[in-house]
Amino acid sequence: MTDRKVTAELAAWIVALTDADIPAEVRREGVRTFVNWLGCAVGGADHETVDAALRAVSPFSGPREATVLGRTERLDPLHAALVNGISSHVLDYDDTHLKTIVHPAGPVASALLALAEHREMSGTTFLTALIVGVEVECRLANAVYPHHYDRGWHITGTAGVFGAAAACGKVMGLSQQQMQWALSLAATQSAGLREMFGTMTKSFHPGAAAQNGLKAALLAEAGYDSSLQGIEALRGWANVTSEKQDYDEVLGELGSRWEAALNSYKPYACGIVIHPTIDGCQQIREEIGADRVAQIAGVQLYTHPLVRELTGKTTPQTGLEGKFSVYHSAACALLRGDGAPTAFTDEVVRLPEIIALRDKVQAETDPAMHEASVRIVVTFEDGSTLEKYVERALGSLERPLSDEQLEVKFTDQAALVVGADLARDLLAHAWKIESVDPAAIARASVPATARAEAS
Amino acid sequence: MTDRKVTAELAAWIVALTDADIPAEVRREGVRTFVNWLGCAVGGADHETVDAALRAVSPFSGPREATVLGRTERLDPLHAALVNGISSHVLDYDDTHLKTIVHPAGPVASALLALAEHREMSGTTFLTALIVGVEVECRLANAVYPHHYDRGWHITGTAGVFGAAAACGKVMGLSQQQMQWALSLAATQSAGLREMFGTMTKSFHPGAAAQNGLKAALLAEAGYDSSLQGIEALRGWANVTSEKQDYDEVLGELGSRWEAALNSYKPYACGIVIHPTIDGCQQIREEIGADRVAQIAGVQLYTHPLVRELTGKTTPQTGLEGKFSVYHSAACALLRGDGAPTAFTDEVVRLPEIIALRDKVQAETDPAMHEASVRIVVTFEDGSTLEKYVERALGSLERPLSDEQLEVKFTDQAALVVGADLARDLLAHAWKIESVDPAAIARASVPATARAEAS
Repeated sequence: MTDRKVTAELAAWIVALTDADIPAEVRREGVRTFVNWLGCAVGGADHETVDAALRAVSPFSGPREATVLGRTERLDPLHAALVNGISSHVLDYDDTHLKTIVHPAGPVASALLALAEHREMSGTTFLTALIVGVEVECRLANAVYPHHYDRGWHITGTAGVFGAAAACGKVMGLSQQQMQWALSLAATQSAGLREMFGTMTKSFHPGAAAQNGLKAALLAEAGYDSSLQGIEALRGWANVTSEKQDYDEVLGELGSRWEAALNSYKPYACGIVIHPTIDGCQQIREEIGADRVAQIAGVQLYTHPLVRELTGKTTPQTGLEGKFSVYHSAACALLRGDGAPTAFTDEVVRLPEIIALRDKVQAETDPAMHEASVRIVVTFEDGSTLEKYVERALGSLERPLSDEQLEVKFTDQAALVVGADLARDLLAHAWKIESVDPAAIARASVPATARAEAS
Repeated sequence: MTDRKVTAELAAWIVALTDADIPAEVRREGVRTFVNWLGCAVGGADHETVDAALRAVSPFSGPREATVLGRTERLDPLHAALVNGISSHVLDYDDTHLKTIVHPAGPVASALLALAEHREMSGTTFLTALIVGVEVECRLANAVYPHHYDRGWHITGTAGVFGAAAACGKVMGLSQQQMQWALSLAATQSAGLREMFGTMTKSFHPGAAAQNGLKAALLAEAGYDSSLQGIEALRGWANVTSEKQDYDEVLGELGSRWEAALNSYKPYACGIVIHPTIDGCQQIREEIGADRVAQIAGVQLYTHPLVRELTGKTTPQTGLEGKFSVYHSAACALLRGDGAPTAFTDEVVRLPEIIALRDKVQAETDPAMHEASVRIVVTFEDGSTLEKYVERALGSLERPLSDEQLEVKFTDQAALVVGADLARDLLAHAWKIESVDPAAIARASVPATARAEAS
């Protein structure tokens, strides 16, 4: 228990914040966060997971004001928030707050863009709210990580709902009291279990967080009251879901320390704990060439314990399972240099040459190894060995993706779904989010044929 | 951890169950559960909490196929499940599974009746699914109670979502695998914090459980896959939300031991832990008369620890807060003999004579006292005392409400919202749930003026 007014102080900060209070470099990272998220949502839009979600919820849609990104269907904003949150996470390619493994944009941007198609807002307002939402989400995650995550909560869902509520509530102009209600309504909807990893339901979590966070803000705006201390109360969110509660992480240096500036973007379309391995295996392939890769007799990985815990599938059968197999990922990076969505298809996972190399990969846990590091020892048929140590993988804070690399990532995945021309136009729009109508960006993600039919 | 296949075995039982597998006395209790729930939902329908929820979600409603019980508005089935779940709990007058303090019908019946307006089903099918949902919900609650509740989870929300998913999935005819997905999709949406007690958000929990359970079944039906072991997995629901996991409570004597037969119905419109106090105070009033009540100098209650924990508000300011004040409840029962919704209005809570007597009530915790018991010692101005011990309150399993008492309860509360004639007709329909179209019952709850306009 604490006697600090965590919910109240956080709400007061959210409500009082102005566009000008956010430093230029934080706003710039916000734009990168948006660009990366939009590319992932469009890139995931034709996934069977999104098809299934649409089949289930579309018959219940309200007025179809909001775009399902990268698709022809439209939904009401609450359901669009759900489905866009799903598509943005389904390739496991979205952004990461590395301290907590939260994927920040999914819950926040999915809710906010859907809201932007319901109520007009400027690009500047949108970006401020996006950054506020990400900041709130990551700070709450910091407060309870790692205990909360270790207990089994999928923190992107459980913290994400606060970010979505804060962002939407900010745009709505909620009073401080209403913002406290919105945060508490988020707290009481916070959910998502790690057991769902490896199934479609993992992607459901950021979607549900987006939908429920938006709903929390709408309820609070309508006068649906709630606790004023849902975060820190004895039977509030932090105490119920975690044995660690560090409220300095929530309230400390608000407005000067920006977690939203620490966002990172994956170069590879899978769980972030495999990234050092893919990076290292790609480097090895570049150094030794494909012929020498064919002579590999064994690959030994020394990794942080989370790697085997989260991605220990030795015999993945589907593309989705491949994302949770450090063995498949290493084989694919060595044989094909690939870590993009093309590496995680059902077809590639079942290729005999991939399976043959995959079965030669072993992973050993080294508790001293950092999560972002790996040591790889390759043994060749002639008995010689090669060792590669990756201290920080591409995409980490120390080796961030450049704007150019983000662009390649965006177009590579979005073009597969909506074509290269549309992907390029959409990307150009997305970089200008601060000066354009956010709703227009959503509409610009729809494949041209559908837009022509609608006009 | 367990090696039992809890989710799989439970799903198999749900899927295989036939109408005839449910004993007549259990079906009879199911009808009583339905009647009590319907009266509460109609009785709560004009509450400001329901108004606020409708303001927030109605603009996002899909095709308005489903009835908001006791009101003229209509909503899509997912939103109707939410709002009817809220109204059925908002007076704290709904049913109780006494072992776990779950209020079973809210999540299950709200989801199921909304679904019945979307897909035709017979009354027999409806009743079977209602009983299945209540059974699943109460068994899961048994498995984790009391630790789960003590940690701070509002178990009506957290267990209720499973009941709604099971009931809706049963009607949809899900396969066993789909039912496992539906239960896991429920598990990953399980939420609701006890901190919200005393605010509108408490009632949000059964509503959200209804909406999310229905959504879980719809997703599973559409092929949205999930864990096959969402209940018992290492990072599944039971382990993540509780330190107690007793899977015999889930799987033991399935089909022969019926938790759904142990449902109970409140005679008083407030938290069940206050009921022994109200019962005892009403008995005292009857025994001594109003004149002698006016000479009370002090009232000493000796109660189970939960009473002060849950209902310890000494100076309630609103009707809602009055429900969480054992002091107000005792005063109102002594002065007016009242424990109905009329005892918990803003006006009554602020009456000077109520406040004067309330301030003379003291509550002391006795760890040896059963939750359903109370010892009351009244001291009069002349120094004499009167002692009353209530071993089991009216409405407990040992002293259940008769059908006639359920009828009085139904019409007393429903008549305030929809008028006495409609309340009487609706009650007659509700008793016949097994032989009528459930959707017709929902429509029959709408005030006559609105129905006339619609026809």
